[in-house]
Amino acid sequence: MQVAGEMIIGRSAVVGKEGTMKAIDPSRNVEIEPAFGLAGAADLQRAAELADAAFDVYRATGLEARAKFLETIADRIMDLGPALIERAMQETGLPQARLEGERGRTCNQLKLFAKVVRDGRWQSATLDSALPERTPPRSDLRLRKIGLGPVAVFGASNFPLAFSVAGGDTASALAAGCPVIVKAHSAHLGTSELVGKAVAKAAQECDMPEGVFSMLIGSGQTIGQNLVSHPAIKAVGFTGSRAGGIALMKTAAARKEPIPVYAEMSSINPVFLLPGSLDNAKLPQSFADSLTLGAGQFCTNPGLLIALKSDKLQAFVDAAAGTIGGKGASTMLTPGIHKAYVNGVGSLAGVEGVTQVAAGQTTDAPCAAQAFLYQVDAQRFLTDAALEGEIFGPTSLLVVCDDVAQMLAVAEHLEGQLTAAVHATEADRETAARLLPVLERKVGRILFNGFGTGVEVSHAMVHGGPFPSTSDSRSTSVGASAIDRFVRPVCYQDVPAYLLPESLSDANPQNIPRVVNGDLAWKA
Amino acid sequence: MQVAGEMIIGRSAVVGKEGTMKAIDPSRNVEIEPAFGLAGAADLQRAAELADAAFDVYRATGLEARAKFLETIADRIMDLGPALIERAMQETGLPQARLEGERGRTCNQLKLFAKVVRDGRWQSATLDSALPERTPPRSDLRLRKIGLGPVAVFGASNFPLAFSVAGGDTASALAAGCPVIVKAHSAHLGTSELVGKAVAKAAQECDMPEGVFSMLIGSGQTIGQNLVSHPAIKAVGFTGSRAGGIALMKTAAARKEPIPVYAEMSSINPVFLLPGSLDNAKLPQSFADSLTLGAGQFCTNPGLLIALKSDKLQAFVDAAAGTIGGKGASTMLTPGIHKAYVNGVGSLAGVEGVTQVAAGQTTDAPCAAQAFLYQVDAQRFLTDAALEGEIFGPTSLLVVCDDVAQMLAVAEHLEGQLTAAVHATEADRETAARLLPVLERKVGRILFNGFGTGVEVSHAMVHGGPFPSTSDSRSTSVGASAIDRFVRPVCYQDVPAYLLPESLSDANPQNIPRVVNGDLAWKA
Repeated sequence: MQVAGEMIIGRSAVVGKEGTMKAIDPSRNVEIEPAFGLAGAADLQRAAELADAAFDVYRATGLEARAKFLETIADRIMDLGPALIERAMQETGLPQARLEGERGRTCNQLKLFAKVVRDGRWQSATLDSALPERTPPRSDLRLRKIGLGPVAVFGASNFPLAFSVAGGDTASALAAGCPVIVKAHSAHLGTSELVGKAVAKAAQECDMPEGVFSMLIGSGQTIGQNLVSHPAIKAVGFTGSRAGGIALMKTAAARKEPIPVYAEMSSINPVFLLPGSLDNAKLPQSFADSLTLGAGQFCTNPGLLIALKSDKLQAFVDAAAGTIGGKGASTMLTPGIHKAYVNGVGSLAGVEGVTQVAAGQTTDAPCAAQAFLYQVDAQRFLTDAALEGEIFGPTSLLVVCDDVAQMLAVAEHLEGQLTAAVHATEADRETAARLLPVLERKVGRILFNGFGTGVEVSHAMVHGGPFPSTSDSRSTSVGASAIDRFVRPVCYQDVPAYLLPESLSDANPQNIPRVVNGDLAWKA
Repeated sequence: MQVAGEMIIGRSAVVGKEGTMKAIDPSRNVEIEPAFGLAGAADLQRAAELADAAFDVYRATGLEARAKFLETIADRIMDLGPALIERAMQETGLPQARLEGERGRTCNQLKLFAKVVRDGRWQSATLDSALPERTPPRSDLRLRKIGLGPVAVFGASNFPLAFSVAGGDTASALAAGCPVIVKAHSAHLGTSELVGKAVAKAAQECDMPEGVFSMLIGSGQTIGQNLVSHPAIKAVGFTGSRAGGIALMKTAAARKEPIPVYAEMSSINPVFLLPGSLDNAKLPQSFADSLTLGAGQFCTNPGLLIALKSDKLQAFVDAAAGTIGGKGASTMLTPGIHKAYVNGVGSLAGVEGVTQVAAGQTTDAPCAAQAFLYQVDAQRFLTDAALEGEIFGPTSLLVVCDDVAQMLAVAEHLEGQLTAAVHATEADRETAARLLPVLERKVGRILFNGFGTGVEVSHAMVHGGPFPSTSDSRSTSVGASAIDRFVRPVCYQDVPAYLLPESLSDANPQNIPRVVNGDLAWKA
């Protein structure tokens, strides 16, 4: 399948007429053919009208039909074969193995949501029996959750497959019964077109209503903002920068009808190295590997280390410096990201009290990121908010504390984060126990003796956290619970049996666990 | 127990120094002693610091201890005896039976949340086993939900007990493990003090940390807004006017760290009278009863009737006019609410095309509301947004449609609502089936052959709905699910067993149902 420079509006491949843009190969810093036509107001309006019209039809599809649709999307993505991987490599500078792995994750994610849809628990079916003899009598009450309505999805630069056109936000919104309009990321336009067409093909094959899926191409400032402002849109999923996420939050809050925004924004993922862990000879290597994985372009990159001053810490730093020194520079996703990285590192290096303790290799290749480790004392860190800013790329800052009290003060001082890691042994038990409640208030995922990079797509995963790591700490954008973002409860009171939805009918034909009169009633 | 004009800050009864206010007896339009001292910035700061300090201690209490605390609050409220009811009658003009019923509902609500806490399902415990042999290996992942942090609660004028100091928002926030700071409603200051002291007494008796509960007295513009702006506050519960709710939403969104606001605001609760229902001779009476219940001061008051033009409809109107004509005027909650009601009715009556078809009795008593039914044709209703505004009190507007298509157009035209009622028989099956999906998108609760007044406190209740009925359609403020508003998920990855919370430990000592590797594992 060839990349044609098209977007997708319902069942039509459309070339936008509002100018053009091209993707860029960051490893050579050159444009890639073809040009993509940009969407205008009429394209957006058409996609929104189709999504609105599709909503009632789509949400009324049975669980099995909807699950099958998600699985078919996965199949059609696999059908794209090597052409998808090749285009994605060109557009992102990411290596083949990583992109093949990410494609696998994307398809597994779609299949996980197919299972979630079939299980039916996301509907939270709850029944309270009528009590006609009570004074006053109680009506028959039944609750289920339904989709919020059409969802706008903004893909991430760093996951051209798993958090883009058919990524986690799209999969969970479709699972919830919500039509989706994707704003394609300008960094991987061709990849987006290929995947978008696979989704459209699956929709047609599964006889889903036109408008269940569209994908627009355009700038975030115009098409993106206008999409979030459109009255047909009822929720937003976004992964990207803090500035980008906050702009969408403001737009959503300023609407006549404000809508939820799930923006996954920025996180520096503090790593606490408790004294016992410094005896682990593998720690410097595993830290350096996590730091430089994917050129450090992960939301969960370990951007902050916190440790107590000691000789062992110095030994850790020396060993990490050796390992980092051997790490080659790797191509970043876009020239813009590379420029922001270079500027971010420059600012950090210029802060008084901050010293460079490790540096990776350099190269003349465009957009290549050199890895760094900097160091600062906790006193200084606590008084300079700028040191807490995210540098997207393979740079981390080691904060050296005088004692445990200061380490706890650093933990308390932190903004909201996606993850926090604690490296500890049994000997650190007391300190770890004091850290845990602080971290629970600050982050979405607490991990021991590991690093946050590598986000499992499963039922217990939380990829979320207090602001500014996300716009809404009550949710996760990865894992089965992501579906909960796009539903709301509706209560049916004394509704005649012939009008009740399947999930609430007496016979429980979906065979789902339901809460009946306050107790969980196991499915047959 | 005497009313002393005090607020409650942690374990202290405090007289504010920033001026005074008094409650008003609306039935005589006179002030009631004593004067209440108003909180200043230092009082707010103290309450916020105590709540922040209490959070980690309070959320670590066991399920049983927390449930017992909620039940003890109910007991201490009952201990207040007739003094509470007498003071509430004075302050609100509501009759004794209604307030005694509301007290019962308040205590049952606290007991329901005690059961919800003990059941433990609100924690959404979810476990994914480690898969060390997989490539790449999967970590041990465990998810639970924890409280968001201290919650600011704004009581409602129309529920001085059930949606005030120890009402639904407070009960569900405390159940979730969140300390609460109540901003007492100025319409029932004495009632608030009495109940606030009962809560404080229960907290002390149950050995809860100081700061788990405070109650401030002051104006919404100063203390209310400053409370929502305070960094220690992590969520807001509010029941009141649309303007008040939107003001809090804006304040919460403008914070450095935006926080969720659960504002239950305005709703006109459309009632669709399908042709078959007009044969029900009891309908005019039950409509008039619902319209005038509690002087029409319910969020779920039937403010809008929608029906097809017919002789039977005229007969319904005539009968309703007769019944409404016999309804006495009753005292409204405050002079301000009464004034707004009179103005609202005046505006509606002045709209071209709107005619008065029924009027209740009048009286010279201050703050007494006369009931009204107005009528307008659908064509006119669809073109004048002002006709959709809420008039808080016993006035409703009948929208007469030419045909079913126009009735559906009226349904589509509506803003978000708390409830919609459909009166129908089997003969109306087809029309009801067409209405249902439209209403699902518009409202939180759909009821058949009844009226929305009378909100059951149970597991399947939804008292919520799309904007502007609430600020967040993903939630309910009444019923067991209200606890979900105040929690967020945290994932524990490879956390040592000795640090895991009870709900996630292998032995499942809380004996709760958990999702294990994607499947619901029944408790022992």
